[in-house]
Amino acid sequence: MAGATSDLAWLQAMLDTEGALARVCARAGLIPEPAASAIEAGCRADRYDPVELGRLAVDHASPVVPLVAQLRAALPEDAARYVHPGATSQDILDTAMCLVATRASEPVLADLAGLADRLAGLADRYRNTVQIGRTLLQQAAPTTFGAVCAGWLVAVDQARAGLDRARRRLAVQFGGPVGTLAAFGERGPELLAMLAAELGLAEPVLPWHTDRTRIGELAGALGVAAGALGTIALDVALLAQTEVGELAEGSPGGSSSMPHKRNPARSVLVTAAVHRTPGLVATLLAAMPQELQRAAGRWQAEPPVLTELLRLVGGAAAHTRRLVEDLRVDADRMRANLDASGLAAGASGSQAVAAAGALVERALNHHTKPSTRD
Amino acid sequence: MAGATSDLAWLQAMLDTEGALARVCARAGLIPEPAASAIEAGCRADRYDPVELGRLAVDHASPVVPLVAQLRAALPEDAARYVHPGATSQDILDTAMCLVATRASEPVLADLAGLADRLAGLADRYRNTVQIGRTLLQQAAPTTFGAVCAGWLVAVDQARAGLDRARRRLAVQFGGPVGTLAAFGERGPELLAMLAAELGLAEPVLPWHTDRTRIGELAGALGVAAGALGTIALDVALLAQTEVGELAEGSPGGSSSMPHKRNPARSVLVTAAVHRTPGLVATLLAAMPQELQRAAGRWQAEPPVLTELLRLVGGAAAHTRRLVEDLRVDADRMRANLDASGLAAGASGSQAVAAAGALVERALNHHTKPSTRD
Amino acid sequence: MAGATSDLAWLQAMLDTEGALARVCARAGLIPEPAASAIEAGCRADRYDPVELGRLAVDHASPVVPLVAQLRAALPEDAARYVHPGATSQDILDTAMCLVATRASEPVLADLAGLADRLAGLADRYRNTVQIGRTLLQQAAPTTFGAVCAGWLVAVDQARAGLDRARRRLAVQFGGPVGTLAAFGERGPELLAMLAAELGLAEPVLPWHTDRTRIGELAGALGVAAGALGTIALDVALLAQTEVGELAEGSPGGSSSMPHKRNPARSVLVTAAVHRTPGLVATLLAAMPQELQRAAGRWQAEPPVLTELLRLVGGAAAHTRRLVEDLRVDADRMRANLDASGLAAGASGSQAVAAAGALVERALNHHTKPSTRD
Amino acid sequence: MAGATSDLAWLQAMLDTEGALARVCARAGLIPEPAASAIEAGCRADRYDPVELGRLAVDHASPVVPLVAQLRAALPEDAARYVHPGATSQDILDTAMCLVATRASEPVLADLAGLADRLAGLADRYRNTVQIGRTLLQQAAPTTFGAVCAGWLVAVDQARAGLDRARRRLAVQFGGPVGTLAAFGERGPELLAMLAAELGLAEPVLPWHTDRTRIGELAGALGVAAGALGTIALDVALLAQTEVGELAEGSPGGSSSMPHKRNPARSVLVTAAVHRTPGLVATLLAAMPQELQRAAGRWQAEPPVLTELLRLVGGAAAHTRRLVEDLRVDADRMRANLDASGLAAGASGSQAVAAAGALVERALNHHTKPSTRD
Repeated sequence: MAGATSDLAWLQAMLDTEGALARVCARAGLIPEPAASAIEAGCRADRYDPVELGRLAVDHASPVVPLVAQLRAALPEDAARYVHPGATSQDILDTAMCLVATRASEPVLADLAGLADRLAGLADRYRNTVQIGRTLLQQAAPTTFGAVCAGWLVAVDQARAGLDRARRRLAVQFGGPVGTLAAFGERGPELLAMLAAELGLAEPVLPWHTDRTRIGELAGALGVAAGALGTIALDVALLAQTEVGELAEGSPGGSSSMPHKRNPARSVLVTAAVHRTPGLVATLLAAMPQELQRAAGRWQAEPPVLTELLRLVGGAAAHTRRLVEDLRVDADRMRANLDASGLAAGASGSQAVAAAGALVERALNHHTKPSTRD
Repeated sequence: MAGATSDLAWLQAMLDTEGALARVCARAGLIPEPAASAIEAGCRADRYDPVELGRLAVDHASPVVPLVAQLRAALPEDAARYVHPGATSQDILDTAMCLVATRASEPVLADLAGLADRLAGLADRYRNTVQIGRTLLQQAAPTTFGAVCAGWLVAVDQARAGLDRARRRLAVQFGGPVGTLAAFGERGPELLAMLAAELGLAEPVLPWHTDRTRIGELAGALGVAAGALGTIALDVALLAQTEVGELAEGSPGGSSSMPHKRNPARSVLVTAAVHRTPGLVATLLAAMPQELQRAAGRWQAEPPVLTELLRLVGGAAAHTRRLVEDLRVDADRMRANLDASGLAAGASGSQAVAAAGALVERALNHHTKPSTRD
Repeated sequence: MAGATSDLAWLQAMLDTEGALARVCARAGLIPEPAASAIEAGCRADRYDPVELGRLAVDHASPVVPLVAQLRAALPEDAARYVHPGATSQDILDTAMCLVATRASEPVLADLAGLADRLAGLADRYRNTVQIGRTLLQQAAPTTFGAVCAGWLVAVDQARAGLDRARRRLAVQFGGPVGTLAAFGERGPELLAMLAAELGLAEPVLPWHTDRTRIGELAGALGVAAGALGTIALDVALLAQTEVGELAEGSPGGSSSMPHKRNPARSVLVTAAVHRTPGLVATLLAAMPQELQRAAGRWQAEPPVLTELLRLVGGAAAHTRRLVEDLRVDADRMRANLDASGLAAGASGSQAVAAAGALVERALNHHTKPSTRD
Repeated sequence: MAGATSDLAWLQAMLDTEGALARVCARAGLIPEPAASAIEAGCRADRYDPVELGRLAVDHASPVVPLVAQLRAALPEDAARYVHPGATSQDILDTAMCLVATRASEPVLADLAGLADRLAGLADRYRNTVQIGRTLLQQAAPTTFGAVCAGWLVAVDQARAGLDRARRRLAVQFGGPVGTLAAFGERGPELLAMLAAELGLAEPVLPWHTDRTRIGELAGALGVAAGALGTIALDVALLAQTEVGELAEGSPGGSSSMPHKRNPARSVLVTAAVHRTPGLVATLLAAMPQELQRAAGRWQAEPPVLTELLRLVGGAAAHTRRLVEDLRVDADRMRANLDASGLAAGASGSQAVAAAGALVERALNHHTKPSTRD
């Protein structure tokens, strides 16, 4: 995840865009084929110095201005003149942002899927393991640990579906200086479609320089995913309290001063990462109203914020997956806590198991065949 | 919108839920039919005092506790004992929240649809009206006002689709004290489905007391809608600047001290409303990690925040619609500004019109038949 | 608090400003004394309809435009012409905002002071009451409940000092249409000082139409106060868990379905209120960059957000005060939990008491004489 | 600023804390002097690998656990046993956070001071330069550019004072495992004072493991500073619009596609940085309620967020300073725009100059002698 959102990954994504643009323009007969090949060959991130580009970017409030200049400078004149045809800086940076987000979402989606499978396994395994349910942090009535896992599972499945949907909307950006694709006359839409196909991104209805709905949707989906993961971490930390003792992390963290401590380190990391996400989502949503044909500040705020958001959700997904894979469940303690509560008298315990079991079954079915519902 | 999210609307939604629950339980043979009828008859908001209920709610951190008590007190004993069967406070409040949000979303969606239609009309009408495009607030290159409207249109269409999707996910809540539907044994899922159908809400896979994905998704969709509306208001205010003068509001606001002022009052109202939304979305996303079987604070924070968010987005949608309906377009000034810019020399103006026209066409087609794309 | 921030309170604050402005201008010999008296007599909120004014405000994105019109209409011509001399809408609304915030802060500060006194009492009373300290929600090492209360105390004292400081910075706003006080020539500063004195607000260096530092500072101080209160509520809820049982609320909340429940209702209310504050603080901070001589949206967003923030922090302060006043401390359970932990072997318990006692003493001294530190 | 908040800077700050702790304990006669010297000698960041420590930190949700282990491993046994005496991980990390924040605030404060001086110079120089004031982005009435600069100045002076105050509150953290300083018995306060003096940080009343008021205050102050800077950048971008043309950046940015563009690049960078701050402030405020004796997630979220906030405000301060130093003021265009507005007829222009001049004088006096007001 760190790699998929590194400075180098961003740089390569910008260069991929320039390369694909040249390729597509050559295919459309707009620039010479040899020029396109030369440009593509030049579009390798290891030929550039991200730190220097970052420094130069400051003067233009855009990394694309110096990058295009360096790309041109590195090519022979008969290729250099065909770099960046009909494009504007934002075309390159927005497309790169969508490439980075698409690529970085893949391991997140994989971790969410792996986590969900593991939760389904736990829901199945512990479907008859009674536990005292707690509301407002007070013991309330019996449930099962399987039902708890089923609840986590449904949320993760939903979060994954939402992130996948938002990711599929990520589109190529291509509009030229003011979003008209004027350099291509009426062939603009054709070029837009070709570039989208070349890069494996969605084809937008229009250039979207100041229509940030897809960025807002992605931000929202990442925020929801974070929330679903944070619920699991919170519950684990609460159930791992010394006085509760129903769960424990497989590899608890140590302390610099207390050798006996068994800290729920992964739960804490996930909680910390999740805590940082809503502010970033809000920052991206607040950036949506952008001025006229290109924003004077709010657009420029997006890339680092989205990068951070992807990293945090990616980290939270990976850590939660491992947390759940290593989770230690103390069914005896669950039973003992329930018995001690005095709230499972009579048939209420077995009734809870039966009722909860029917719900667990629904969750498992939905996990296997999500298309039948939602 | 104010009405759809008022204290009374919330109260009625809670009562609708209690009434439907009784109806459904009677239909399932779980409570006597006459009791259900009596309960339903008692579920009229005008029989209760929202202010007093609000006061009583404080002692329990829940309005449902005193509401159920008052509902029972108002019924004969042989009906009173069947009130609220198998349910918990959160079942009632969450279902009411989904009812309120569903009902309040309707006028928002209608305003977004009406706004989009009007934008489509403007995109069509002004497709050949040249205008200087501005990037980073500097004059850049020619575009058309039709293309500007088409850009607004696509964003609004997308925001509307997203809000509609999130709204359809709003589900009945029904799980009983700890989410197992234990009172109904294995008939829980059957009751869940019946209650959803009765209230016209989605049927969830599981009770979702601490799975807040649907609330997070709704928040995100409202935030995206706000952003799309805010872009229009921002652009209108910028294009209505005295020095630019290309647009004007149909009913500008006055000043308490300067009779000559023609303030872009609606744009300002929309901008102000939109500005307030990201913080509320973040608050709802941050509320997602909720403890065990019922949260100790974050859940209780949701209803007022969602209410405010619905009101703000609803107000912004209504004002933007009216703003656009009354918009005064000064095509001569657009032409004059473009000419004065010196940036439409040679064929660049007509080339921009042709290119932008192709894009406007795409946006209009997509507006008419959104199913073919996205 | 609800009263101090109601629509009526805002209306009266605006009218207080108009009245004081007339009084001051008369004193400066700028308008006739009888006109000022007539204006002041007309500045009573009960003569106006807040709902109608709210409706009219929409057309101008300002409540002051219709308010001034109605105030003038209600006066004889020879007074009406002297209403609102040299002022602009924002002068009235910003001054009203500072009046409302000043007035509404008073009960908050009083509740924070009362809460702190009570915490000091608890710190003193329980300075030798051992308790197991918990880090990352795991039992760690011995402390005392007195030390816990001392920690809460120091935070509340600090939050109160910060809120008091921000409140004292709240200033009169008076600059006229573009902030020059042009109507008064070089007498502007004199009028500014007189108006500040008349209304009991600070005198700003300059009119501050687009300098929102004092609003940002107030927001930050309210956010810090919320955080200090939220810590207490969170700790009470955790220590009141069934499995921990060291604290209990004096008046726990009931449940609609579980008669045995003793919900930590006040802790939950405080947590819910506190949870809603950071998003509002962020909204006010994000509103700080305001355009030129008066903002086109971000200023207009401030009043409702600040109102909500004041209400939430005021509610949280009042509830936390009552929560702490009614708090039930189970010293035996604290002792038992500590003993069961096995972490107070040897002298560690008594050593903790001695060490914690020295710290409690510091906190009590600081509470009594805060001027000697910080 | 990047250096002052780098991973290496954090590492060195943690090591400075360990070193100072050893020194102070030796001075108090608690550990041998030679051990303290050996420990101090080992506390050099270049002896450690931040990347490896970061990796190891994950397992414990704390970088201090592996750092202390490595520090001990690098020392002879008779020094190693005296590392980290009586401390807990949070003592080291919180103190390091305060050291990093204190050090990183210095260049920010210097840039704010330099910026303010420059603004004072501009206010003085342009005190008679008329300009049309604009409210809600509409031309309104005459002001002077000197008055505009004076308004910026007062806000920057206030923001600087607030940041300086928050910075002076940053304190040493030292409480041991559960904040009692139990290892030192009743000598805890003495050690606390010595450590504070040794590190040049404030001495807190108590260990503040879960009292985050000072972090919240610092966050608020940084947010206010960002807002004051953002106002300047926004105004410059608006006044640099092609159609307005009253200001220009000294080194405008270029475009990858439009050679004629003179982009307000620094204004855009500042606006982008400022836009990112409110979400981070909210994240730190939302992190304030922390559990019992050490938080399980919210505390761990603070360091990266505060680091980012410091960097953004630091970058914004430096860029705004340079922006203002290089600012090009077109007084003729200001005059021409005012004349064309028709709003400076009669004496209103000269009256505005006189009135504004009196205010400029106040601002300059306040800048020179801030102690006389506020």
